[in-house]
Amino acid sequence: MQGLMMDTPLTLTMLMDYAANVHPDSEIVSVTCDNPRHRYSQRDAFKRVAQLANALTRLGARKGDNIGTLAWNDYRHFELYYAVSCSAMVCHTINPRLFTDQIEYIVNHAEDQFLFIDVMFVPLIEQLQDKLPLLKGIIVLTDQTHMPETSLNNVHCYETLLSAEPDTFCWPDINENTACSLCYTSGTTGHPKGVLYSHRSTVLHAYASCLPDVFGMSKDDVMMPVVPMFHVNAWGIPYSAVVTGSKLVFPGPKMADGQILTRLINEEKVSLSAGVPTIWMALLGYLHESGETVPTLKSVAVGGAACPLSIMEGFDKYNVYTHAAWGMTETSPLGTFNCRLDRNVLGEEAFARLRLKAGRPVFGTQLKIVDDNNCELPWDGVAFGSLKIRGPWVCSQYYKLEHNDAFDEDGWFDTGDVATIDEHGNLQITDRSKDVIKSGGEWISSIDLENAAVGHPDVAEAAVIGVYHEKWTERPLLIVVKREDAQLTGEQVLAFLEDKVARWWIPQDCVFVDALPHTATGKLSKKDLREQFKDYRFGDS
Amino acid sequence: MQGLMMDTPLTLTMLMDYAANVHPDSEIVSVTCDNPRHRYSQRDAFKRVAQLANALTRLGARKGDNIGTLAWNDYRHFELYYAVSCSAMVCHTINPRLFTDQIEYIVNHAEDQFLFIDVMFVPLIEQLQDKLPLLKGIIVLTDQTHMPETSLNNVHCYETLLSAEPDTFCWPDINENTACSLCYTSGTTGHPKGVLYSHRSTVLHAYASCLPDVFGMSKDDVMMPVVPMFHVNAWGIPYSAVVTGSKLVFPGPKMADGQILTRLINEEKVSLSAGVPTIWMALLGYLHESGETVPTLKSVAVGGAACPLSIMEGFDKYNVYTHAAWGMTETSPLGTFNCRLDRNVLGEEAFARLRLKAGRPVFGTQLKIVDDNNCELPWDGVAFGSLKIRGPWVCSQYYKLEHNDAFDEDGWFDTGDVATIDEHGNLQITDRSKDVIKSGGEWISSIDLENAAVGHPDVAEAAVIGVYHEKWTERPLLIVVKREDAQLTGEQVLAFLEDKVARWWIPQDCVFVDALPHTATGKLSKKDLREQFKDYRFGDS
Repeated sequence: MQGLMMDTPLTLTMLMDYAANVHPDSEIVSVTCDNPRHRYSQRDAFKRVAQLANALTRLGARKGDNIGTLAWNDYRHFELYYAVSCSAMVCHTINPRLFTDQIEYIVNHAEDQFLFIDVMFVPLIEQLQDKLPLLKGIIVLTDQTHMPETSLNNVHCYETLLSAEPDTFCWPDINENTACSLCYTSGTTGHPKGVLYSHRSTVLHAYASCLPDVFGMSKDDVMMPVVPMFHVNAWGIPYSAVVTGSKLVFPGPKMADGQILTRLINEEKVSLSAGVPTIWMALLGYLHESGETVPTLKSVAVGGAACPLSIMEGFDKYNVYTHAAWGMTETSPLGTFNCRLDRNVLGEEAFARLRLKAGRPVFGTQLKIVDDNNCELPWDGVAFGSLKIRGPWVCSQYYKLEHNDAFDEDGWFDTGDVATIDEHGNLQITDRSKDVIKSGGEWISSIDLENAAVGHPDVAEAAVIGVYHEKWTERPLLIVVKREDAQLTGEQVLAFLEDKVARWWIPQDCVFVDALPHTATGKLSKKDLREQFKDYRFGDS
Repeated sequence: MQGLMMDTPLTLTMLMDYAANVHPDSEIVSVTCDNPRHRYSQRDAFKRVAQLANALTRLGARKGDNIGTLAWNDYRHFELYYAVSCSAMVCHTINPRLFTDQIEYIVNHAEDQFLFIDVMFVPLIEQLQDKLPLLKGIIVLTDQTHMPETSLNNVHCYETLLSAEPDTFCWPDINENTACSLCYTSGTTGHPKGVLYSHRSTVLHAYASCLPDVFGMSKDDVMMPVVPMFHVNAWGIPYSAVVTGSKLVFPGPKMADGQILTRLINEEKVSLSAGVPTIWMALLGYLHESGETVPTLKSVAVGGAACPLSIMEGFDKYNVYTHAAWGMTETSPLGTFNCRLDRNVLGEEAFARLRLKAGRPVFGTQLKIVDDNNCELPWDGVAFGSLKIRGPWVCSQYYKLEHNDAFDEDGWFDTGDVATIDEHGNLQITDRSKDVIKSGGEWISSIDLENAAVGHPDVAEAAVIGVYHEKWTERPLLIVVKREDAQLTGEQVLAFLEDKVARWWIPQDCVFVDALPHTATGKLSKKDLREQFKDYRFGDS
């Protein structure tokens, strides 16, 4: 029997209406390329959103079109989020830090019809334009005064376009499963893959992320998303802050500048923020050097990579609580969130251990860890397996890529991570699936071994990869960079590990190298290491 | 273009899984008819929920069946909420305070297959059983020791039934639009009308009601719903507390007992609660008499009727914040919620005025006020019109009652209330639609006139009704009960109103009576007054 409740679709139009009616005075403050501090109200923002929707129509954009953006976090990008999606078009945010050939691939693969770009990306698109034949127009996100000279064809000035339009728009009715935004994720292999979010998934993610044990955002909060708006929709904050009426502070292109961030926090009374570890290192570095403080800041959420304890302890000194979180482009991104723990109840040791975990599933997501046979493993904090996730804001397939092994027939997404989950539902990522060592049917975490090895005072850096072994299929090989002038043998390193990991985890061999290969973002490149050691064979054992 | 996100249905099964996996240790504490303090964990609760689902199947209940409950707030009723709904049956909560013939009507109209009742309702059902021919069985919510002697046929003991069943159950897949629960609302005229909630509406309502500016419930909170579980699902708290992992405290049949409530609050460290004004009068009365305090209680939500300032000020003394809220059975119930206001920022006068309003729309609901021609009125805090609401947890039609004037063709529900909404979205109910006086095309609030009239020191009670008028269609008639021994003329009362309401609002006449008619719940009976004055005609004017 069907319930008899209204069939109200969950759409971003609902958010826009809510803002206009319920908290029109909430502020949005931005640093932009052409203004060091722009501010306006949500009332004014959504009038401009209507102007932009009219401009899109006049330019010839149609329902279902993909509209690309290459832009930092500011109010114009915020306007694009709503005007594009609520016109039943798709807001395709593009990461300007990708390689140019990846950007070319993405714009063409998405068949973007228009591209909205910050002034600083004009040279990049000038260089690419001949390779982007589907583009009907390029709009530079600035006013007439700041328009650069450019060789771009079909180029428009954003403010000039908007000023010609009325500030009301007849928004279309939208089915909640309609696509609203698109974000490509770039793995280490193959082309970037597109994740196509729906209105429904975005609204549900917004509800969940505002909950008291997640971002806990209220009307009195001031939220500054330091995670880029081209990065999984800035973790959904441009949506969730509209649900709550929180003031929004957008740092524009100044995201890694500790001084600007500090100034924004203190002048705008920022209470909550979110970003990757690198950002927080920059902020904490600046605070340490300058002696400044951030008294209004209550907490920060850290995701994108595991949050080091040093960052958490750094923030502790300023009375800022650090929440570890885990998610992916494919998961909108919120999968888990580590809520505020009580240091006094837990005691120092347990507190430090638990806060480093990625937290518990946010209501709406379901997690499981499985072994090689897809059998579910216990939540005991010890067993580790492939992490799978499902839920209404988890990707069901990639854009224009029907088959992909990451999607189970039974409706789970394989994250490519290996993890443990403890009895309270706390997730801990222990490895990437492709890096875990499969030895005699059992799994060994390369990361755990590396962490143990660098505990040796003479080890500067360590990496572990799996190498073919006749009997065990794979066994771990430890590759070490010694500290300068250190006298150290492989036997010494292996002996050092003996009381730190299970006996059968002890690497089969330890070899020394002068340096380890790293990726452009500074991560250890296991792919290059595997290539380098592809002919390595263990001796008798 | 459709998004590519998982098609995960929003169901109560999702809540049950979440509790079992993420916060199995959260406690549920109950006062029951057979145990002054029962406590267990959500882990144990959901094992018993599975036992109950098995028992329902064994009894012969089938998907789509309506299962009635006549019970107070406790853990067994909580088990019914989940076992029934997650078996794809409908949990039909019945208000035992209704007249017996209404209960008879409701059970038969819903075609309830089984009835789960507290021990104290056995005599009531014994009396009714012959008139309930569709019932296949009656289950008494107690253990074998406390089973009463009864003349009921097909009667079972709840605990005996459960103890025979395994604690796992193969839960069916459920479409999110499937009905999960049913609650009848009894107006002043006609039969009670059924509101049929869906899994989707219930999950969305749970998300919205946990938000920081609504209940703001977190894992560390202890929530005691004092609103009955037969009353719009205890405002959804048995669901929302499972989303957040908050400890739940159920007061059983002891809801109007200030002493028991105080003891529960202090012994179980209750931090949040919700209920109607009457409950809080009982609690505050007890606190005042006993000198006890409630230091853990942070806030209470008040709905069901306008919250008097005296209750708010009463709670202020105990450092408990009082939130006014508005909703109806038809709206799940949350429509608006008055979030925490800052007394220091607003100043005493504005604070007292604003906190009395019913608050702003909860994200998901949309409100409008309209005039007689269904034209929308401004949100200026002055214009008042018929209050309409829509949203994913608002009823679209009554159960087995296809046509009802309350439902617009354009998808809005007419609440039957007349209200103002201010520029910040704050709702204030000013009248019931049927009581508002329509004078020359303009509306006059009967309640505002009554409130103004009782301000006169010699007026004990006042009522205003609309009476036919040749020129203006209707004009207000003021009906007054004088204070004992007061010397007072109608002219004096009308003159008193002159600087208090608009000139054209001044009643056409003022008549005196010895007493005003009231309903069983103590409200002024305008219906009886209109009957009493049906032949009244104004003199020349």
